[in-house]
Formats: sequence, structure tokens, C-alpha cells
Amino acid sequence: MAEFSRSDLNRIARKPDRGHYDKETIYAVLDEALVCHVGLVHDGQPIVIPTIHARDGDTLILHGAKASRLLKHVQGGHPVCVAVTLLDGIVFARSAYNHSMNYRSVVLFGQGRALVSDAEKLRASEVLTEHIARGRWQDIRKPNRQELDATAFVALDIESASAKIRTGPPGDAEEDYQLPIWAGVLPFRQQALAPSDDPRLASGIPVPDYILRYTRPR
Amino acid sequence: MAEFSRSDLNRIARKPDRGHYDKETIYAVLDEALVCHVGLVHDGQPIVIPTIHARDGDTLILHGAKASRLLKHVQGGHPVCVAVTLLDGIVFARSAYNHSMNYRSVVLFGQGRALVSDAEKLRASEVLTEHIARGRWQDIRKPNRQELDATAFVALDIESASAKIRTGPPGDAEEDYQLPIWAGVLPFRQQALAPSDDPRLASGIPVPDYILRYTRPR
Repeated sequence: MAEFSRSDLNRIARKPDRGHYDKETIYAVLDEALVCHVGLVHDGQPIVIPTIHARDGDTLILHGAKASRLLKHVQGGHPVCVAVTLLDGIVFARSAYNHSMNYRSVVLFGQGRALVSDAEKLRASEVLTEHIARGRWQDIRKPNRQELDATAFVALDIESASAKIRTGPPGDAEEDYQLPIWAGVLPFRQQALAPSDDPRLASGIPVPDYILRYTRPR
Repeated sequence: MAEFSRSDLNRIARKPDRGHYDKETIYAVLDEALVCHVGLVHDGQPIVIPTIHARDGDTLILHGAKASRLLKHVQGGHPVCVAVTLLDGIVFARSAYNHSMNYRSVVLFGQGRALVSDAEKLRASEVLTEHIARGRWQDIRKPNRQELDATAFVALDIESASAKIRTGPPGDAEEDYQLPIWAGVLPFRQQALAPSDDPRLASGIPVPDYILRYTRPR
């Protein structure tokens, strides 16, 4: 399946021309983003928590402390919604009404299951580390017994998802185009600045190339 | 009240030293962020939707098309959770386990109410526009009758909220500090690039100063 089927859950009802259901588009947004927002229901109350994610095939990996409310809930198999948003720019129109944003967002739905074997947990740890910075896993000290036991890893099989994407200039009402008001797009980029060494860094250890030349997959 | 009281809803249980409950800290995060994630419960299902917000005193303003599922739900007075996250950097530790992010996030809870009078709607439109770019409101064509009627504006009185903030270098296990592994922080910034004119921009209209020198309040 290269595309998610459309249902009431994932259909883009507002501005349907901005909707995308193919995995290629959806997964590219998930892979670029460093933060996701996980939504769950606790005693009827919606709760949204930001966290780090990584995709492993058709599965989204989340992790956290064993005692974390989020992880306990998600690995309990309750329905979960995860949203990821990349902001690409502010769209300045001539009218207040037509101001907008350029963005790429994904909303997905699934149910979590705990990863329990050491092999699964190590794989999840590797996928999360490589999501943050490709090349990092081979350099670092891998999780030990105590760390694996203290961490909950959850796999969320992506059951339904869609992306919503806006690009391009503002769309103003035809009669507004002649107004003497600047209109256009102010693009944004998540920019990595110069890395700073840990003050306790042992001497003679250079910054790795994958951090010096850091980019997100795009 | 300069601080939100702590309850099971807003208390930072994991890493409580990262928790903040004062309005000054919480509102600064809300004011800097251009995107929020709204969580709601629909037929028992959690749904998270990204949108633009703006703060007006102790109230969060949301808006959208009258027909939008999000807006209909929020103005129905159902409980809503809104999360805002600013990513400040990746924290590279020597161990996989101690990798982290530097971030400032806010999670808030409230119930929405529809803004119905023209005065309230115009005020909300101004607050949203000025949140996106301070100085923009005075330059643009204000909402007309048809646009006001087509737009739902919702006010969410912030009933409970907390911020969670991580800063600084990695914290590794004492025995790991001597490992020959680079550790430190890769800072991130949401960077505005050069603005691009609308292809249909009337001639002789310069880019306004507040867009040329665009920064987020911080």
C-alpha cells in the first residue's frame, strides 16, 4: 500500500486540494521533523505532549522514561493521534482574511504497543538516534542493561494518516490586487547554528562531520 | 494571579526541575511560537490539529473557517489542550540514553467560547495579525462583512498551564565523561530568510520594515 485510504478520520475536509494521502509525502514530513505532538485521552480530557519520534517503516517509534504518563498510556493500546508540523513561511496577503502560513503537516492515527525484547529496544534506540543525526549511532555508547530497563519504547503502527501542505504566494480577492499593500512570502528555515562543545569534553575530540554539516533529510 | 496553581493536569511529573508555572515564562513561549497543536476528543478519539494562535491577556485566540471541525468543536465548550513547542537545540551526549533536546514547551488547558460580536471578532483578527508580524494590522485591508461572517473566532480562557524547559549541555553518567566521544549542543533557530514579493505585487511597493527585519518576540 503506497497510500492511506481516506476515512472520516484522516480526510482533509477544509481546503482538500492541500491534502495528501501517499506515504512518500507523509513519511518525508515525519522524517524531517524533530518534534511531534502526541494526543491522547485521559479520563475524557485531551492531552497533547511534545516528544521526539522516529519512523521505522510503517511504524512510529516513541520512547521515554518507564514512569512517563505518556508512554504508559500509549503502550496500553489506547488510540493515539500524532501531529507533526514543519513551518515553511508566513504568507502576507493584502487582506487580513487571506494571511496564511506555508507549511507541511501530518496527522496520523494508531495504537501503541510496548517493545519488550532487548533486540527490539536496541533497534528502536538506534532508529531514534539516527533520526536525530544520521551517523550518530556508530559513535556513541549503546544502552546498557539498566538504561534499557529504565526506558519504555513504544511502536505505533500507522493505521491512518494524511498530510496537509500549503506552498506559494498569497491568494487575495481579485479586487484587492491593486491595493498599495505589500504582499508576499517570508520563508522560514529551521537553522542549525555552530555546535558548542560540552564544557567537560575530553581534549582532542573534534566535532563529527555529521554535526558540523548538519541538515535534516529533505 | 501571576502563577498557575499545580494540579494533576499541569504538573510536570518527569524532570520536575524543568517545570515552570509562572505566567511570564509560559506566555513568553506562547508569544514566540507561530504554531500550536490543539488536542480535542471526538467520539473518544484524540485528534491533534496544528493551527495559528495568539494570546490576548489570559486568553488564547484561535480562528478558522466557520465549517472547520476544529473550530466547531472548540467553540462548543469541550475541554481542549493546546501545546506549543520551541526547539532550541539537539543535545548530543556520549551515551545514547542521555541524548536530549533543548526546548521550551507549554501545555495549557481550557474551554473555548465563540466570539460573536463584530467588535470581538475584529479585536481577535487584530491580535492574530499582530502575533504573526507586529505592525502588520495598520497596513492591511481589514475584514469585511462577508469575511467576518465566514470566520469563526474562538477564545480559550487559559485555566491551567505549565511550561517545560531544558537548557544547557548534556548530562552523562560520571564514568562516561572520559570516553573519546564528542558531546555538546547543536543549537537551532527558526530563521527568517529573504522575503519574496507576490508575483502579482503592484509596482513600487517596498517590503515593510517589520518584514525585512523580522524577528519573533523573545
